[in-house]
Amino acid sequence: MPWKMSRRRAITLAGAGVGLGAAGLAGGAALTRDPAPEPVSDVVPFAGPNQAGIVTPAQDRLHFVAFDVITKDRDKLVQMLRDWTAAAARMTAGRDAGEIGAVNGEPEAPPDDTGEALGLPPSSLTITIGFGPSLFQRFGLASQRPAVLEPLPRFTGDTLDAAISGGDIAIQACANDPQVAVHAVRNLARIGMGTVSVRWSQLGFGRTSSTAVGQATPRNLFGFKDGTRNLKAEQTDLLREHLWVQPGDGPDWMTGGSYLVTRKIRMLIETWDRSSLTEQEGIVGRYKGSGAPLGADAEFDEPDFTSVGADGQPLLATTSHVRLAHPDTNQGARMLRRGYNFVDGSDGLGRLNAGLFFIAYQRDPAKAFIPVQRSLAANDEMNEYVRHVSSGIFACPPGLTAPDDYWGRALFA
Amino acid sequence: MPWKMSRRRAITLAGAGVGLGAAGLAGGAALTRDPAPEPVSDVVPFAGPNQAGIVTPAQDRLHFVAFDVITKDRDKLVQMLRDWTAAAARMTAGRDAGEIGAVNGEPEAPPDDTGEALGLPPSSLTITIGFGPSLFQRFGLASQRPAVLEPLPRFTGDTLDAAISGGDIAIQACANDPQVAVHAVRNLARIGMGTVSVRWSQLGFGRTSSTAVGQATPRNLFGFKDGTRNLKAEQTDLLREHLWVQPGDGPDWMTGGSYLVTRKIRMLIETWDRSSLTEQEGIVGRYKGSGAPLGADAEFDEPDFTSVGADGQPLLATTSHVRLAHPDTNQGARMLRRGYNFVDGSDGLGRLNAGLFFIAYQRDPAKAFIPVQRSLAANDEMNEYVRHVSSGIFACPPGLTAPDDYWGRALFA
Repeated sequence: MPWKMSRRRAITLAGAGVGLGAAGLAGGAALTRDPAPEPVSDVVPFAGPNQAGIVTPAQDRLHFVAFDVITKDRDKLVQMLRDWTAAAARMTAGRDAGEIGAVNGEPEAPPDDTGEALGLPPSSLTITIGFGPSLFQRFGLASQRPAVLEPLPRFTGDTLDAAISGGDIAIQACANDPQVAVHAVRNLARIGMGTVSVRWSQLGFGRTSSTAVGQATPRNLFGFKDGTRNLKAEQTDLLREHLWVQPGDGPDWMTGGSYLVTRKIRMLIETWDRSSLTEQEGIVGRYKGSGAPLGADAEFDEPDFTSVGADGQPLLATTSHVRLAHPDTNQGARMLRRGYNFVDGSDGLGRLNAGLFFIAYQRDPAKAFIPVQRSLAANDEMNEYVRHVSSGIFACPPGLTAPDDYWGRALFA
Repeated sequence: MPWKMSRRRAITLAGAGVGLGAAGLAGGAALTRDPAPEPVSDVVPFAGPNQAGIVTPAQDRLHFVAFDVITKDRDKLVQMLRDWTAAAARMTAGRDAGEIGAVNGEPEAPPDDTGEALGLPPSSLTITIGFGPSLFQRFGLASQRPAVLEPLPRFTGDTLDAAISGGDIAIQACANDPQVAVHAVRNLARIGMGTVSVRWSQLGFGRTSSTAVGQATPRNLFGFKDGTRNLKAEQTDLLREHLWVQPGDGPDWMTGGSYLVTRKIRMLIETWDRSSLTEQEGIVGRYKGSGAPLGADAEFDEPDFTSVGADGQPLLATTSHVRLAHPDTNQGARMLRRGYNFVDGSDGLGRLNAGLFFIAYQRDPAKAFIPVQRSLAANDEMNEYVRHVSSGIFACPPGLTAPDDYWGRALFA
C-alpha cells in the first residue's frame, strides 16, 4: 500500500493561485491531483518584483542557513538553483518539496519530500536567497560582483568565529511554525546534496523587529523593545531610498534586490540581569516598560537628544544605544531589520548561550550597516554585554516575475 | 519616570484565580495592583496533586535545562527552591517572575524579572521540576533516594556526551510561545545564581507526541508519526498503573510523582533522506502518509505482528521500530512520551545537527524505559540513523497542594 499525496491536501490549489502561482514556476503537473479548496490566508506569495521575506510582516520563527558550494560544475549549480526555485515555490504555497511517495511509480527511490511538515499549514513561510562575496570568485562571476558586496570590515570588539560566518549562498526561511521553516531548509539541503554543503545554520524565535505598520514591536532578550524606528513595508518612498537596489546602483541583476547583513550577537544575559533597571535603561536609552525614549512618554515619540537631566547631563547619554543607532546620528542611514532571538543551549560555563541573530536589509551596506556598526562598536555602552560571533553579507536578487524564472537566472545568464 | 507593572496586566488575576492560585503560593502582595480582567484560557494551573507539564496536552515548544547545584549550603538550596516555586507560580499564571521595575522603591536594584515576556500571553506555560541521582549524594538526602533513581545503564551504541547529560536538578518549561518558555528558564537561572549553574540546556519545537485524546499525532524529523500508542491524559487507570508513583513504590515524598527520562537523539537526517520510501516504512513499521502500521489502514489500528507479506516474511519486520517498541513486545511496558524535535545549527561536517529530544515519564524506569531501550538498542534497524548523545533521569515529585508548599518540601523536610 504505497502512498502518494501532496503535502497539504487541503490547501494545494489555494497556494498555487496566489501571486504568480506555483504552477508557473514549479511545473503544474502535480497540481491537478487535488480538489480545489477554500483559499487560505497564511500563504505569502513567492513570486513578485521583490523577494518575499524582506518587507513581509516578520514571522515568528527563523531557520537561516549558509551553504558552501562544493561543486566546480557551473551547470550543476544552475540546475540546483532551478530545482530549489521549484521546491521553494511549492513549499511556500504550503505543499511538499516534491513527491513524497514513490517517484514516477518507483518505490525504491528516496521521497522527494522529507515529510515532517505533512499536514501543517503554510504558516506564512517565506524563503529568501542571497549570494555571498565568495561565490563571485568562481563560476566566471567576478564581473557580476557588486562593488559593495565585500566581506564586512572588522569592527572594534569583533570576536567572530569563521566557521559560522560567511558562506556562498544564504537561505532565510521564516514561518510562524518552526517545523515549517526547518522543513524548508532541510529539503533545500537535501536537493542540494553534492552541490552545496551546510556551512552554518541558525534557528531563531521571537522576531525582534516589526516590519509593518501596526505590528507591535517585540522585545529582545535584554527585555527591551528595539528597532522601533525600523523601516516598514508601507513606507514605499523610504524603501526605495534605503532598501531596494535601484537601477544604476550596480550590476543590473541586483536591481530590485537588497543587501543582507547577518550578525550573531551573543548577549551576556547573566551580566545584564545583574545590572540595575536604571543602568539598563540608561544604556538602551529607553524605558523598559513602555519602550519610550528616556524623557518621552510613548514608544514612538521621537527621542529628544537635547534634553538634560537634573544632573545637567544629557538624558540620552552619548553612549546610549538609541542615540548611536538613530538616523540623525548616522547621516540618515536606515535599514530594514528583522532579527530573531536565539538560545543555543548553554556555553559550558554555566550560562545560557543566548542572544540576537541580527538581520538587516539595505540598499547599500556602505551607507547603512557599516557606518552605523562602526559607531556602535566604538561607543555603545551596550558592548559590555554583547559579543559579535558571526558575520555575513549576501546579495539578495530581486523576485521572480516570469514563469521560467529561477533564483540567480539574471546573474548566471 | 521609573516604571512598575506586572508582566501581563490584563491577565494577572485571571491567572491567579486558576487552580490553587498563584497568590497562595507566591505571596499575594503584588496581586492587588491590577484590575480584575476577563478569564483567559491559556493558563495551565500550576498547583494540583501532580505536577503540570506531564499529562498537560503537549505544548508546541520546549526549553529544558539541567542545573548543577554549586552551593554546599542546604538552607540556601531550600530557599532557592522556595523562590523558584513562587516565581514559577507567577510565571505560569502569565505574570512576571517578580517586580520588573524598582524593587521596594530602589531603582538601583536589578529587576526581578528580565522583561522579554512582557506583554506576551501565558501561552500554556508549564514548569516541571525533577531531581537527579547526583543530588542525593549530598545534603543528607541519601536515605531519601528512590532505589530506581540511578543513572541509566549504558545501552548498546550509546555515544553520550557527559557535558550534556545528567544534572542535579532539571526544569522542563513547555509553552506555546518559545519566548515564554525561555523566559521561564532564564528567570529561574537568574534567581538561582550562586546556588545553581546551568549544566546543559535544550530548546525544542514541534512536539512529537500527543498526550491527550483528540490531539493529533505530530511528525518527527524522520517525517513519520511516532508515539501513536502514547499514554493519554484521559486514561486514568493506565496512568495510575504506568505513570504516577503509587504509595509503597518507594519513599513517600515521590508518591504522586513520576520518573523522567531524557535522551537527546541525534538523527542522521541526510542519510535517512537518501533511503527509499519502502526502506523508511519498513524500518518504522508504519506508512509515512497515514501513520498506519504496515498492512493496516489507519493510524490507530493495532499492528498485526502475525501478518506476512508476499515474500513470506513478516510484514512488520522483527527489527521494525513499531514492533520493538510495542507494549506487547515489552511485558506491557508503557510510558508517557512528550519529546520535541530540535535543530542545533550544523555540525561542521556540512550537516544539520537535528533530531529528537526524547522525554518520557513513567512510574518505574526499570520496568519501562530501560527494558524497552535495551531491546531497541540491540535490535532496532533505526539505530543506523540515530545516535544517543545525551541522557538524563530525574525524580519529579508530586504537585503542590498546600499554600505553603514548595518544590521539594517533602524531600527536604
